[in-house]
Amino acid sequence: MVIEQPRVLCVGAHAADFAARCAGALAHYASKGCAVKVACWSFGERGESADSWLNNPGIDAEGVKTIRRQEAGDAAKALGVDIEFLNFGDHPCEVTAGRLEKLVSVMRQFRPDLLLIHWTHDPYNTDHAIIGEACIKAYRMAKGPGVNPGEEQLHFPDVYYMEGSLPLSEHSRFIPTYYVDITETFQQKTECMRQLKSQLFMEVRYRQLAEFRAAQIRSFTGNQGIQYAEAFARFTPWSGNTLPLFERQTVRKFSY
Amino acid sequence: MVIEQPRVLCVGAHAADFAARCAGALAHYASKGCAVKVACWSFGERGESADSWLNNPGIDAEGVKTIRRQEAGDAAKALGVDIEFLNFGDHPCEVTAGRLEKLVSVMRQFRPDLLLIHWTHDPYNTDHAIIGEACIKAYRMAKGPGVNPGEEQLHFPDVYYMEGSLPLSEHSRFIPTYYVDITETFQQKTECMRQLKSQLFMEVRYRQLAEFRAAQIRSFTGNQGIQYAEAFARFTPWSGNTLPLFERQTVRKFSY
Amino acid sequence: MVIEQPRVLCVGAHAADFAARCAGALAHYASKGCAVKVACWSFGERGESADSWLNNPGIDAEGVKTIRRQEAGDAAKALGVDIEFLNFGDHPCEVTAGRLEKLVSVMRQFRPDLLLIHWTHDPYNTDHAIIGEACIKAYRMAKGPGVNPGEEQLHFPDVYYMEGSLPLSEHSRFIPTYYVDITETFQQKTECMRQLKSQLFMEVRYRQLAEFRAAQIRSFTGNQGIQYAEAFARFTPWSGNTLPLFERQTVRKFSY
Amino acid sequence: MVIEQPRVLCVGAHAADFAARCAGALAHYASKGCAVKVACWSFGERGESADSWLNNPGIDAEGVKTIRRQEAGDAAKALGVDIEFLNFGDHPCEVTAGRLEKLVSVMRQFRPDLLLIHWTHDPYNTDHAIIGEACIKAYRMAKGPGVNPGEEQLHFPDVYYMEGSLPLSEHSRFIPTYYVDITETFQQKTECMRQLKSQLFMEVRYRQLAEFRAAQIRSFTGNQGIQYAEAFARFTPWSGNTLPLFERQTVRKFSY
Amino acid sequence: MVIEQPRVLCVGAHAADFAARCAGALAHYASKGCAVKVACWSFGERGESADSWLNNPGIDAEGVKTIRRQEAGDAAKALGVDIEFLNFGDHPCEVTAGRLEKLVSVMRQFRPDLLLIHWTHDPYNTDHAIIGEACIKAYRMAKGPGVNPGEEQLHFPDVYYMEGSLPLSEHSRFIPTYYVDITETFQQKTECMRQLKSQLFMEVRYRQLAEFRAAQIRSFTGNQGIQYAEAFARFTPWSGNTLPLFERQTVRKFSY
Amino acid sequence: MVIEQPRVLCVGAHAADFAARCAGALAHYASKGCAVKVACWSFGERGESADSWLNNPGIDAEGVKTIRRQEAGDAAKALGVDIEFLNFGDHPCEVTAGRLEKLVSVMRQFRPDLLLIHWTHDPYNTDHAIIGEACIKAYRMAKGPGVNPGEEQLHFPDVYYMEGSLPLSEHSRFIPTYYVDITETFQQKTECMRQLKSQLFMEVRYRQLAEFRAAQIRSFTGNQGIQYAEAFARFTPWSGNTLPLFERQTVRKFSY
Repeated sequence: MVIEQPRVLCVGAHAADFAARCAGALAHYASKGCAVKVACWSFGERGESADSWLNNPGIDAEGVKTIRRQEAGDAAKALGVDIEFLNFGDHPCEVTAGRLEKLVSVMRQFRPDLLLIHWTHDPYNTDHAIIGEACIKAYRMAKGPGVNPGEEQLHFPDVYYMEGSLPLSEHSRFIPTYYVDITETFQQKTECMRQLKSQLFMEVRYRQLAEFRAAQIRSFTGNQGIQYAEAFARFTPWSGNTLPLFERQTVRKFSY
Repeated sequence: MVIEQPRVLCVGAHAADFAARCAGALAHYASKGCAVKVACWSFGERGESADSWLNNPGIDAEGVKTIRRQEAGDAAKALGVDIEFLNFGDHPCEVTAGRLEKLVSVMRQFRPDLLLIHWTHDPYNTDHAIIGEACIKAYRMAKGPGVNPGEEQLHFPDVYYMEGSLPLSEHSRFIPTYYVDITETFQQKTECMRQLKSQLFMEVRYRQLAEFRAAQIRSFTGNQGIQYAEAFARFTPWSGNTLPLFERQTVRKFSY
Repeated sequence: MVIEQPRVLCVGAHAADFAARCAGALAHYASKGCAVKVACWSFGERGESADSWLNNPGIDAEGVKTIRRQEAGDAAKALGVDIEFLNFGDHPCEVTAGRLEKLVSVMRQFRPDLLLIHWTHDPYNTDHAIIGEACIKAYRMAKGPGVNPGEEQLHFPDVYYMEGSLPLSEHSRFIPTYYVDITETFQQKTECMRQLKSQLFMEVRYRQLAEFRAAQIRSFTGNQGIQYAEAFARFTPWSGNTLPLFERQTVRKFSY
Repeated sequence: MVIEQPRVLCVGAHAADFAARCAGALAHYASKGCAVKVACWSFGERGESADSWLNNPGIDAEGVKTIRRQEAGDAAKALGVDIEFLNFGDHPCEVTAGRLEKLVSVMRQFRPDLLLIHWTHDPYNTDHAIIGEACIKAYRMAKGPGVNPGEEQLHFPDVYYMEGSLPLSEHSRFIPTYYVDITETFQQKTECMRQLKSQLFMEVRYRQLAEFRAAQIRSFTGNQGIQYAEAFARFTPWSGNTLPLFERQTVRKFSY
Repeated sequence: MVIEQPRVLCVGAHAADFAARCAGALAHYASKGCAVKVACWSFGERGESADSWLNNPGIDAEGVKTIRRQEAGDAAKALGVDIEFLNFGDHPCEVTAGRLEKLVSVMRQFRPDLLLIHWTHDPYNTDHAIIGEACIKAYRMAKGPGVNPGEEQLHFPDVYYMEGSLPLSEHSRFIPTYYVDITETFQQKTECMRQLKSQLFMEVRYRQLAEFRAAQIRSFTGNQGIQYAEAFARFTPWSGNTLPLFERQTVRKFSY
Repeated sequence: MVIEQPRVLCVGAHAADFAARCAGALAHYASKGCAVKVACWSFGERGESADSWLNNPGIDAEGVKTIRRQEAGDAAKALGVDIEFLNFGDHPCEVTAGRLEKLVSVMRQFRPDLLLIHWTHDPYNTDHAIIGEACIKAYRMAKGPGVNPGEEQLHFPDVYYMEGSLPLSEHSRFIPTYYVDITETFQQKTECMRQLKSQLFMEVRYRQLAEFRAAQIRSFTGNQGIQYAEAFARFTPWSGNTLPLFERQTVRKFSY
């Protein structure tokens, strides 16, 4: 009963959030022929574009947005996925009824089976938590025929949380309960991050994080082939005829 | 990469815990030809055999155990699964190194892919929580070559929690994050519970609970065909190449 | 020192929230001659009126509100309680200083001894949580002579939380710590729900929930006469000369 | 439906725990003619008798117990309540099946309507938490006809938690949700504490705490007459035909 | 590596919040020659000025603000610290992008080493929590060169939480993990509170709280010289070459 | 008022726990001339010595202990610290009154200013949590003149928690709130881990973890010089005349 070719929608607060949090998983889905899309609430023009401001004295917000649009577009291209910019601003992200209605329209038009959203507690960058909450509101609103009447309602995508501000999971109280093995697509994730030229620190930091998550999940599965992983948590509960089990390795000797 | 024919082991504190908590899921696995076994820490001779004591004035603990052994054996038979009685006593359950070593042996001999254990917070019947914790200790000890040297080590079964004292989930802080649709095996679960003649209240109570869990999961999936469900939570995190998604119903009209 | 004839005010996010969550308790108070009032933040015209939209193609929000006003008015009448519609919109509920001031006025004018509000964590319908929080703000503002100067201040109603989105209490982290036996008024609650013709699923679902809550509280009291119950939690702490105790049944035989 | 003359049993880990935590409430019940009893797991001979050891060089545990028995007996007398010493030792408190069975017998013999137990998280004196947990086990065991067969089963006393290590409630994560006004019996509580001559610091500390708890509850009730209070939390949920409300003061001017 | 002369900025929701929560600590820093400043989001003209309204019939919000500005200015003077009024209103506090930008400017201009903010859970006065959250947003925004371009970025002040609504810490889930001994500056704190003539209850209540906090910390340190203390918690984690240790007293005899 | 030359005691459940969790910090203290000691509850002969069992067919527990004693002794030597083996067994660790009394004696004899203990929630290796709890009991018992009469009481060491099972902090709910920069002693930590020849995987895993913790704390301090760090949390609260602040780096450009 598993959906073979899920449609995948990721909603990020800023233009580069998808690259750090789920580029490996997105590349995997795209490589299997799934429709994959990233929607960006903002360009991250105030909150994650420090280099653009510092390297271009006198630049203004519109100038930074132009740079970010190009970089994030290239990053999405490196994964083979679509990207849309809502241009609702950041630092702070402000959520209004009208913006939620637009987010509902984006969801209903794309019709995701899998919806990736931000974790909703993030004291070190509240933008992420605010947009995570906005997605939860929009997920509910998308079911209602009274919201944007005329649009086709959207029911029951599987919703997963991406990690909070990286690599500060304990401080965000994020507990990774789903790990995705991205060993095969890690090179693509690296390419993706390299396009975000204003944030070149990303490559080192998120390689380190991917290795760390892989070390964790190796300790639960014994599968020594997992070299890079991304971590998620589930919003909606699981439903099935059985409990999901993963294939384990035959292990004779295990290092704790 | 899903395991097709998992070996399933359920460890209960008392003889009837499996019937209330996971009989529907066990029946499903057994019907698919999986090896399924129930291990009972105690006969529940002090904590869940009130009728046996009250209906048989002058009976002693050994007498109650004899009754319970028969009833629980019949209940397991109704599901087509094996059952073993460790006879370690209840109310209170006392955990010692020796008893843990025995539990490790049981696990290592059966070699489960799926291990079902008690939820570890249960203020209204602490026996359950104590045996849940004992299983977590044994799960870890089973990996170690230094525990019961000579036995073959056991690595990485998937571990799921069963519900706490029923139907008091909020008081046990149990959050059901995995629901199993037991519509097809609910008749077998009913038969199973009817064998536990000392606890005839079970049938009504757990039918009600199964309907309640079904109502919950219908609200997440829109699948109106789910009439009975059992609820679980996961101990070990999920690992996979993708995120698990379940097939959704096409829903035009949804009642919140 | 118990207040014999409390004035009771329930504030719901949508027009039908009171019917599902506390109609049994409201009917009880009304039957004892207490003044009882329901205030509705919105008509639930976008978030809980799916049938009105789907069954009336081309209808608009004002049309749905007209239907809901009628239904909810009839539902209140079935309990013998008053109802007021604030018409502040839903999906999303947006809280402003002006709307809070209006809510303060409603509270101060009615002068409740008992104030029933929404539980403040509700991921599956954030409207409820938002209005629960709004009530907590208004409860505080109502004490201040500087808010709406000229109105009489309101001090210290007992505040209780109603359940979160039903029947998803574990997912809303709602722990029911006060149960009200509604066996005597359950027929009235049923009548009340039947008036909400756009949500006819309510009757089955909330009868099931009321039976479930009754089963829980029977397990704490042994009182087999409780057939239907509603669940609550307290916001403000209890104060008294003694600790409140309820009368217990004499129980010889107890099924766990 | 309130029980007018409840039988009250308090179980403390050490001989003086009742004096600090609930002497005011116990005195109130005793003054109304209720049967009131204190059961002490240990004399606190190792954990709360520092002065007895330091002031009597060369004394041994038995010597200290003799002192404590006298002091605690006098303290109980000051309240007009009974006291029993189980003499099971402290620092650490060790719980065995046999000791739990004895505790069950004490409960069944006294047959409390109101059972006061220790809060179950207490990092700064784990004895309290351990005995709190033991009481929860015994509360459950007392229902079972298979435990100490022949004794009359005990069903459903109301159970309340006393505060954790005083005055460290935040560190024990104790949230006081029930306050008892002990203004009228505070003089008796003071007399009670003065009998515990090995712990003369008690009087000052617990007067300060009682004033602090009173200040808290005044801020919820506006009742300026509450000068001393004790704080509790509830283990079992409340059940009733209505929600408990306390009489409020008429307040014109309120200091936040 | 300790900063010897930290610049200290406290941001309160209302004009008097600093007096109750951290006046002792502020006086200490000021006495050592540190630059110390208080920024007030509002005058507390609606939420904490009950006396000003009740004692001046017919007064309006502007009139109350004038009174509060004078009182809070005198209170700051009693400590020897600066004060600034943002005049953004209270009950409710409403946070906008523009107000956050102003708060960022205040922070960047003052350049604090130590930033004192409100605790972010406070059900009994949500203004405090809202402004605590606003400060966390502004702390982050202050790092970004894209926020208020042209201003000098502010990096990494140490951030500490002040207590929630006093004295209701358990209800606000505030766990004090840092205590500051204010025995030496308590007289100044008293003078400070006396200036707030509209809230004369403060002096008694916060002396009681300071004694209570001192009793707590004496039980952790044995230092009997601590007579008054203020309590805090840390937002950002500690970093150092070693773990911070405080000097302990030599204690022969310790009362638990 | 900082203690300049603290005496440092680390209590581990198994022989190698100190190497992974705090070897960098211990090396730092030792290099400053502090007395530093490690006490090991067990040799980890069953739970962390897989290689010793697998590489030496037919070996028994005593044989493994001999190997572990040598390795752990060499590891301690690499840091310049003392080590003591209590030999109380592992997998499971069983805590008795007698063993706690011995632990009290060890503490009292060494008289630590800084006591490092295990974090008390650790589902993937409950040994750690059990010994963490045991240390908290012993910390309390060590204050009491009635425990091991004749020994000198020990009052108020600063107690810090080490990390839970590595690198599974989120699953252990460990929130690192104190980071120690171990860049200078990381080479010694590496030497230390290399002595534990039965667990050669340690070096890679804990270098990775130390880099990860360093990345986290760099994001809070901007100090790019921190290349390796260890993480801790505090058991007892902080007390001081001021709030501890660390020296920050001057940062012009900051990568989030």
